[in-house]
Amino acid sequence: MKNKEFILKEQWQITKHLVRWLLLVLPVAVITGLLVALFLWTLDLATEIRWQFSWIIFLLPLAGVFITVLYKYFGKGTELGNNLIIDQIHLNDNNGVPLRMTPLIIFTTVVTHLFGGSAGREGTAVQVGGSISAFFSKVFNLNQEDNTFILMTGIAAGFGAVFGTPVSGAIFALEVLAIGRMKYNALLPCLMASIIADVTCSLCGIEHTKYHIDSVTTITTILPNIDIDVKLMFTVASAGVLFGLISILFVQLSDFIKKTATLYLKNKLIIALTGGILVISISYLLGTLDYLGIGVKSINTDGISIVSAFKQGGVNYFSWFWKLLLTVITLSMGYKGGEVTPLFFIGAAFGNTFASICGGPIDLFAGLGFIAVFAAATNTPIASFIMGIELFGSEYMPYYAIACFVAYYFSGHKGIYHSQKIAVSKANILK
Amino acid sequence: MKNKEFILKEQWQITKHLVRWLLLVLPVAVITGLLVALFLWTLDLATEIRWQFSWIIFLLPLAGVFITVLYKYFGKGTELGNNLIIDQIHLNDNNGVPLRMTPLIIFTTVVTHLFGGSAGREGTAVQVGGSISAFFSKVFNLNQEDNTFILMTGIAAGFGAVFGTPVSGAIFALEVLAIGRMKYNALLPCLMASIIADVTCSLCGIEHTKYHIDSVTTITTILPNIDIDVKLMFTVASAGVLFGLISILFVQLSDFIKKTATLYLKNKLIIALTGGILVISISYLLGTLDYLGIGVKSINTDGISIVSAFKQGGVNYFSWFWKLLLTVITLSMGYKGGEVTPLFFIGAAFGNTFASICGGPIDLFAGLGFIAVFAAATNTPIASFIMGIELFGSEYMPYYAIACFVAYYFSGHKGIYHSQKIAVSKANILK
Repeated sequence: MKNKEFILKEQWQITKHLVRWLLLVLPVAVITGLLVALFLWTLDLATEIRWQFSWIIFLLPLAGVFITVLYKYFGKGTELGNNLIIDQIHLNDNNGVPLRMTPLIIFTTVVTHLFGGSAGREGTAVQVGGSISAFFSKVFNLNQEDNTFILMTGIAAGFGAVFGTPVSGAIFALEVLAIGRMKYNALLPCLMASIIADVTCSLCGIEHTKYHIDSVTTITTILPNIDIDVKLMFTVASAGVLFGLISILFVQLSDFIKKTATLYLKNKLIIALTGGILVISISYLLGTLDYLGIGVKSINTDGISIVSAFKQGGVNYFSWFWKLLLTVITLSMGYKGGEVTPLFFIGAAFGNTFASICGGPIDLFAGLGFIAVFAAATNTPIASFIMGIELFGSEYMPYYAIACFVAYYFSGHKGIYHSQKIAVSKANILK
Repeated sequence: MKNKEFILKEQWQITKHLVRWLLLVLPVAVITGLLVALFLWTLDLATEIRWQFSWIIFLLPLAGVFITVLYKYFGKGTELGNNLIIDQIHLNDNNGVPLRMTPLIIFTTVVTHLFGGSAGREGTAVQVGGSISAFFSKVFNLNQEDNTFILMTGIAAGFGAVFGTPVSGAIFALEVLAIGRMKYNALLPCLMASIIADVTCSLCGIEHTKYHIDSVTTITTILPNIDIDVKLMFTVASAGVLFGLISILFVQLSDFIKKTATLYLKNKLIIALTGGILVISISYLLGTLDYLGIGVKSINTDGISIVSAFKQGGVNYFSWFWKLLLTVITLSMGYKGGEVTPLFFIGAAFGNTFASICGGPIDLFAGLGFIAVFAAATNTPIASFIMGIELFGSEYMPYYAIACFVAYYFSGHKGIYHSQKIAVSKANILK
């Protein structure tokens, strides 16, 4: 029975592999979880302070200058952010991600939020996970292949902890590397990392915002005996197309502003200063500060936020566009933070507006926009679909799949992460 | 703005691609859905008849001879079943899957079930979807690449319709082709196919068995403020290892029986005859007919079935093994049907036993075994995880992920589909 022996040998190797990775992942995930908790706690504090002292936003241009100077002196080699980590994974390199990325990105993200920049948090968390894992890669003296693995677990840990969604955190780390293909090489190490980081973060007392979709239960399907409402399915697919196009607008506008600013303003300090002034001016023209900061909640009970987007009349028809514009200016002109939470805001607000105009349950379409614009902009349709289930429950999961997959197709081959490889063309366009 | 023009061109190409595929998929999915409905209806009838006239199982050996003769005269080139379809996708071929596969596999599967063979139904549904799609590939005169796509949509349609799980049906079709890698080339065409087929099948009045996991809500977590119970997580991971090993036992025992039978019995008719006699004899030694047929429900109120496995005391300690043995004999010795429903039975029964011995919520572990043994044997961890959510809801989804992913790792590099390529080694074992 040679065959049997070989099998047992294989299981033994798998066991060793997994135990080894549990030990390697443990410090990365625990420390990432702790730092993400610290980050989220500080972020909440910064938001509270800005709500209390709203004049603070007039200091945003100066904050931008400060961040730019900080990065000029200490940020060398970290400016690429998430793209740097994706690059290093593709290069099998373990020297490119410095540990100082962690304090730098946490500090500058909090500064951005404190003074009213419109930004997110996943980028920060992923960079923390990435730089902590790169640090341990050096400590453990890992070889190239293992280094790739540990960087992926860092992404999973950061993403899983910051949103409280461990399964989509793990899938995101596998899926984000290349468009159109998922390799399972670090499937379990990534799941371990995101669960451990999420548990650590939760143990620190971090609570994640809960969203609810429940109006759809009152829908009557036109066909008997089936759970899927065919008309709603087509409405969701149409919304998916628009979610994909919004993601293109986000990516293209970011590139356009970056290029234009570099072309005409040249100096990075002046770019940051101008960006800050633009953000303040636009906010005052709009007459609301609700599009600043993280945007999960608003200080006003009738304010505009991700949470309000799940309610009838919770946003204006162009809320999605103003959040998009302010975020793109903030992140393209020298301020720091993630893109994903603003993408949630943009998607949820647009979903709300779409449902108001085209008819459909507001909360369902807000939830669909939340995950589908993210799916489109990051090219991670399966992680986004799973995130929908983790955040909103499974009742409407076929609609999540339709919205995320359609948006993914329509966002083309460019996303917010320029370092993503194109592995498989969408719709056989690129040969 | 050349750039903008190019983008709009890309969206236009994507739109054409998707509309074209919706039209191509429509006849494949509708006809597959109808045929799967017919198949499931006939299967139910066959089960009812066997329950009414239990003496019918004595004809099983003759039924085996009949099936073998049928395949000898009409089955040329279809014997490989699901593997044939996977092969054709890898070969980019559109001539290898004959249309007569559909009537042959439906008829012989129903015969197998009528006379008491222990078998499933997903293999049949996938073969129906595969041969219907191959037929339309010829009708539409598709090129090699499109042929690959349409065969994948056939798998998705069959799988989605037969279990009423459209999202996991689509993911299964992408994931089953190669171990360790998922390519998104036919993501939306597969989703369209599985949803359309599922809706068609449901419109024909087919209802799928509902399973419930709810006892876990009473569990108190040992750590405050987190949803995940750490101790339960480790118990689930341990169970995952065993689920993976059971899948190996299934695959190895199938190979062993096939080889031994061919070596000693030589003639296919004698093999089928012997297989039938073995199945009847073992059932009589066990004193129950509950391990015969599809096994979703039992005729006796206190009988053993997939449904009973979700209840305390619903199975015996070795129920999983007897179902495994009878299924392996049935399917390796000339009878027809799928492997997946028996794998659900084996997994759910073992999960029940595991929870009784090691402590844990019975229904949760039955559900975990249901999806994880399937994940391990087919090397489709993500489709299985999603199927868990589609069948049991999302409340315990981190546990589904742990069980499916761990079982996937521990099942090694061989599964029930020999035509699967190995794209990425599990745990870096195969270089």
